[in-house]
Amino acid sequence: MEASDRIEQALTSALEGAEAGSPPRLAAAMRHAVFPGGARIRPRLCLAIAAASGDNEPALAEAAAASIELLHCASLVHDDLPCFDNAATRRGRASVHQAFGERLAVLAGDALIVLAFETLAKRAALAPERLVRLLATISRAVGAPNGIAAGQAWECEPTADLASYHRSKTGALFVAAVTAGAEAAGSNPVPWRALGERLGEAYQVADDIRDVASTELDLGKPAQKDVELGRPNAVDQLGLASAVERFDDLVFKAVSAIPRCAGSSMLRHLIRQEAARLIPEQFIRRAA
Amino acid sequence: MEASDRIEQALTSALEGAEAGSPPRLAAAMRHAVFPGGARIRPRLCLAIAAASGDNEPALAEAAAASIELLHCASLVHDDLPCFDNAATRRGRASVHQAFGERLAVLAGDALIVLAFETLAKRAALAPERLVRLLATISRAVGAPNGIAAGQAWECEPTADLASYHRSKTGALFVAAVTAGAEAAGSNPVPWRALGERLGEAYQVADDIRDVASTELDLGKPAQKDVELGRPNAVDQLGLASAVERFDDLVFKAVSAIPRCAGSSMLRHLIRQEAARLIPEQFIRRAA
Repeated sequence: MEASDRIEQALTSALEGAEAGSPPRLAAAMRHAVFPGGARIRPRLCLAIAAASGDNEPALAEAAAASIELLHCASLVHDDLPCFDNAATRRGRASVHQAFGERLAVLAGDALIVLAFETLAKRAALAPERLVRLLATISRAVGAPNGIAAGQAWECEPTADLASYHRSKTGALFVAAVTAGAEAAGSNPVPWRALGERLGEAYQVADDIRDVASTELDLGKPAQKDVELGRPNAVDQLGLASAVERFDDLVFKAVSAIPRCAGSSMLRHLIRQEAARLIPEQFIRRAA
Repeated sequence: MEASDRIEQALTSALEGAEAGSPPRLAAAMRHAVFPGGARIRPRLCLAIAAASGDNEPALAEAAAASIELLHCASLVHDDLPCFDNAATRRGRASVHQAFGERLAVLAGDALIVLAFETLAKRAALAPERLVRLLATISRAVGAPNGIAAGQAWECEPTADLASYHRSKTGALFVAAVTAGAEAAGSNPVPWRALGERLGEAYQVADDIRDVASTELDLGKPAQKDVELGRPNAVDQLGLASAVERFDDLVFKAVSAIPRCAGSSMLRHLIRQEAARLIPEQFIRRAA
């Protein structure tokens, strides 16, 4: 089966487990947050690294990939709340709080975080010792001191170190995606770490560029939010041309960080494809 | 060491792990949510059942107890948010959103949920097969379809079955506390389930009675919230005298549900003590 089908199936099965008997509007809000998805780049990375590592426990790799995507979706739901970005749109349609109200957006986010860990638990009985490592890897990437919640919380501090802010808010889950891919296959994650770090940085710079240079229509969510909310932005700091150059350089570094392995050509392709989706090449040429 | 010291120590150590390098206000908000605690009844139950089951992996039982209490605290932080109860006080002082703002209250709740699972992962390397069961037990109690998030989400539905609402919002975590206590000790949790269910029901009825019959000063949080928010309340449905009788009956049933074991006398004592704290006996006599 194609990786993208495995991901959608794992997410569907996770959501179905949370739906039967659930308050119907909560179930609908959770589904709205997860389907239809964005690029699913984090779970695709996770499965790609599992494949490159032998993928000898594919159901566990799928659970890890789904868990990471559920946590990503949960963070978007809470990030869109009125007290944060107050974003009425996401992925080209109403954000969860816009469609279901603020209370269900808080609860859907909470329930998706929990579902991420429950999804891991459900598939882990065959390799419990791998679960211990996956649980540590994935939880570290989303809480405090260095995960997504901490990253968003740096926005509530009077001053913040930009690198820590980006590393927590965006980088940590990319590192977790590559690490979990290797761990789900019972393989050593250390050689993959640099790839996750470079991709996380590239993704954050791309996000900054897109926030400044796009319209709401391109993004499927409100643009120009960083200036509006006084958030640090790479374009603000470097100028557009240098930010684009930095993105291009980080993608090159990410590709170079792929260890020699059976799946390296497939991984290079995945990363270049995703880079082109984030910042099209004609844009890079135009900005340079 | 006393159970209460073991609990505070496990919670302290969990929080410390989340603090070093964390955004300082997030760390402070998380600590505010957890210390000083309430009665810590769920983790005390968890440790009591682990003790009655042999407690041959005490560090794991402590991690399970801490995990359950962290999830309880997280649910209170989100429940107090302006879009839910809009409660300015909790445990006799400012609620988290009152003290730190709404954004940090959302994030502190999220980070506490994650920390609960991370705390389990940290102590589970010695008994990974028990981790699989604990993770399933604890995650089921706090998400959807039957955990705390689902319970709170029933408040967002036009109609709700009162029993499902209470079972999810309050009962599920009591059942998880007794189940996890047995599982952390590698023991069969089934004989403990009825105790968790009765206690969860008793606790919900007590909460309803206290909401109606107390003042903010007694509760340490706003009283009369159920009427204000149009939430179902046992006193509303049964009258005060019958609700108190129901509470007393549920406590009796909980005590009767304790399986014959080495720790049964200690458990009976714990439950009676907690019942007296919730609804003092003179109040029961007065209402009867």
